[in-house]
Formats: sequence, structure tokens, C-alpha cells
Amino acid sequence: MVNTTLSANIGAAARALKTMGLTQLVLVAPKTFPSPEATALAAGATDVLDSAWVVECLEDAIADCHLVFGTSARSRTMPWPLLDARPATALAQQSAVQGQQIAIVFGREDRGLTNEELALCHYHLSIPTNPAYGVLNVSAAIQLICYELRMHALGQPTEQNDAQHRMPVATQMHWDEPLVDQSAMQQFYQHLEQMLTDIDFLDPQNPRLLPLRLKRLFSRIRLDQTEYNLLRGVFGRVQALRHGKWPPASRQSRESSDV
Amino acid sequence: MVNTTLSANIGAAARALKTMGLTQLVLVAPKTFPSPEATALAAGATDVLDSAWVVECLEDAIADCHLVFGTSARSRTMPWPLLDARPATALAQQSAVQGQQIAIVFGREDRGLTNEELALCHYHLSIPTNPAYGVLNVSAAIQLICYELRMHALGQPTEQNDAQHRMPVATQMHWDEPLVDQSAMQQFYQHLEQMLTDIDFLDPQNPRLLPLRLKRLFSRIRLDQTEYNLLRGVFGRVQALRHGKWPPASRQSRESSDV
Repeated sequence: MVNTTLSANIGAAARALKTMGLTQLVLVAPKTFPSPEATALAAGATDVLDSAWVVECLEDAIADCHLVFGTSARSRTMPWPLLDARPATALAQQSAVQGQQIAIVFGREDRGLTNEELALCHYHLSIPTNPAYGVLNVSAAIQLICYELRMHALGQPTEQNDAQHRMPVATQMHWDEPLVDQSAMQQFYQHLEQMLTDIDFLDPQNPRLLPLRLKRLFSRIRLDQTEYNLLRGVFGRVQALRHGKWPPASRQSRESSDV
Repeated sequence: MVNTTLSANIGAAARALKTMGLTQLVLVAPKTFPSPEATALAAGATDVLDSAWVVECLEDAIADCHLVFGTSARSRTMPWPLLDARPATALAQQSAVQGQQIAIVFGREDRGLTNEELALCHYHLSIPTNPAYGVLNVSAAIQLICYELRMHALGQPTEQNDAQHRMPVATQMHWDEPLVDQSAMQQFYQHLEQMLTDIDFLDPQNPRLLPLRLKRLFSRIRLDQTEYNLLRGVFGRVQALRHGKWPPASRQSRESSDV
């Protein structure tokens, strides 16, 4: 962070780094550091502040680096290799894995990096913002870049254009119970249709689209075993009610005595 | 944003939205709003604050929504369909393109969303943070999610293109009928629970996990209007049966004459 004015941004940056598993913050001639405000905003990330380097100029900050990105809202007078945040962080991550030291340089709150500072960078890095309002706070920008670095490090999938109309599936999700298999679901549909027949909701002679609709509906859920038992329990209760077997005799007498 | 305590976070959230081209901020019972601090932190995004909705409860906030994500640091007592930020925002973006209203719900600074609030959501959304320090500031979390939404909207290309990096696929979700919104689903759950109470399956004095399980189950489906009407028709039929109103009198006499 170059010439940061607001201590709050230094604290928020420390927190942003640590939430994404990064540790090395370098402060180039900050206006005030350390400061109570930075410590307060860092929340539990004061270790990042404690181990921050403070240097006098950007050249010192990046002296040991192999690859340097300078964040820039737009291209300046001189065109420079420019990458969006996602490909830039992908390159940074790949290079870090190969043992290179990487720096990502963030500028002043009010006017970013100077042309001279940007000229010290291999690439300029731009976060694709709203063209009508690209005013990202510096700690917000740091949060986004640290997040992208972490996503690349985790090998998170990225968007594919052709992913439209696709739905994530239940199998991707952490589930505590086994999902029921298709043979169980066949019994489920039979039970459901029998129950609906019992209560005159389904006419087996003329079912129309109803069974199909129900299969389409419940096949979207992928029931787990507990849910399956629960729903079949409900179906059974409705059937018992229909056939005069609910409430049970002992309870019926209690109920009538309540009246 | 639910029950936000710090006005600075509301202002920073407005700025985060606007930098990524989003506009609709909904505040559920904020501690203070409007406030000079929120306005200051919003920088040039005061229009987002000016047009923010302020509502009393989360149910009101999501009443017109078709797909609701609740941000959650970890799984709670009952696992819920859980997606990481990137696939969750991909799904949100796809659904928005199809004309659906999407909500992404962010909780309190100190303790996030309650289990009851999380149970109103179709999916829980988790931002993959450092396991040793996942303490994301709420406005930082909003910034990340808005950024991901914008990346999906821009169809940001990626260098990762092999099959294993693609979002797993379930059903093709071309739907011919409108999906019901969350206010309809609130009525659905009330009706379902009343029906289960009527048939002594649910004890309102001691519901245990049953209502939560049912919400988790049906929130995975995203019912369309026909399915919704169908299931509510079944609930109504079961209730009529329980209360001696089914079969109707004319039909009952026919049935007994059959015997």
C-alpha cells in the first residue's frame, strides 16, 4: 500500500489479507503507522500489522520481487500490459507456486499510483467495475484481489458462459444423511399415488398429468433417508385417517371424552 | 442486510453495490438509518442509500423473491444446501437473467443470521476464507459477492477449461411456468404445518425439528405455480377429510349406497 492516508484502510487491509490466508503487508510511507485505528479495524488480524514492513519508497518495497502488478483504474498516458483482476491473479498464483516473489501494489486513496510508480510494474491490474462508478475503496480492492488469489490457490472453478440454465446439484453439497436411491423413490411414488387415490385426489382411471408432475417435483429434491421416512409417515397417517384408523380407538375415546 | 449495527457498514455496502453495477439495497431493521456516517462512507453511492428499502423483518425483505441465498460462515445444527460464493453467484446470475428476483442476505456484524433466518433461504452461501481466520467484515463480504455477480454477468473468461473445473450439472432448468415467490412459500409452510397439526403429525407445542426439516426439503424444489396449487390442494383435501368435510354429503350418500 503506497502512501495510505487513512489508518482504517491499513487495518481493513490487514484483515482482508488474513481472511484469505495471506500474511505479507508492505506499507510504503504510510501517513500514520502504527495507529490505534488500524489496530481496531484489523480485528483479529493484528499479527499481519505486527509483521508489516514499512519502507520509504516503492522501489524498496518490490526490491526482492520477481513479478509486480500495479493496480490502476484505467490506462494512463502510456499503454502498459493490462490484465483484469482474474487473469492477473491467476498469473500471480502460478508464479508464486513456481517460487517467485509477487507484489501487488495499491495506490493512494485519492489518486492511486503515479505514472512513475506504475512504470515499475510488469503488468497493470484492473478490477472490472461499473464504468459509471468505479470508485473502489482501497481496502475493498485489496479484499477482492486477495479473494481471487485464494480462489486460484484453491483451484475454484470459474464461470463458463455455457453454464446457463444449469443447476447445481445436491450431490455437491455437504449432507449429513445418505440420499435415498431410485428403487426407494419408486416405492415413494407408488405410496404417494395410492394415498392421493385414497383421498380422491387422483383418479387412477384418468390420472392425467398428475403422476408425472409429482415425479418431476420430487425428483428435483433428492430426498435423504430422514425426509423420505417423514413424508412416507405423513402419507401413512393420511391413509389411516381416510380408512377410519386414525385417531386410534384408545385416543378416539379420549378425544370424545374431551368434548 | 439484517440488523446492521454500524452505519459505516451500510455506507460501505452501498458503495460496494454501485461499484459492481448493482442498485437494490434492502435494510432489515437497521440500528440507525439514515445516518451521516453511512452517507460519508457511501462516497458517490448515496443514490443507492436514497433508494434503499427499509423493512421490519426478513420475511418482508424477500417476499417478492424467487431465489434466496443466506450468507453463513459455517453449517448449523441442520445442514442446508450449501454453495461456495462462486457457484452460488453463478446460479443467482443465471436465475436473474431468466427474470427471477434474487436476494442475497447478509447477517449481523457479530453473529450473522439466526437459524430461523437461514431457514428462509434456499441455499446457504459460504465465502471460502482462511479456516484459521474467517472473520470477514460484512461490507467486505458484500463487496466480494457483488464482484462475483458482476464477473458472471460479464461472462469473465477463464484459463481453466477442463471438465473437472466446470460446474456440475443436474437438470436443464428451462421452465415453462412462473416460479412462486417467497411470500407464497410462507403461506405454503403455514398451510403445511396446519395440515400436519390437524392430522396429529405435528405437535405445535413441541414441533422439534419438523418445521425446519420441511422448509429445508421444500426450499430445495423451487415450486412453480401449478405444483404449488397442486400441493396446497392436497393439503386442503386432507384437512377436509380430517374435519369430516370430505367426501361431500352428496357423494357420501352415493358411496354408502354402493356398499
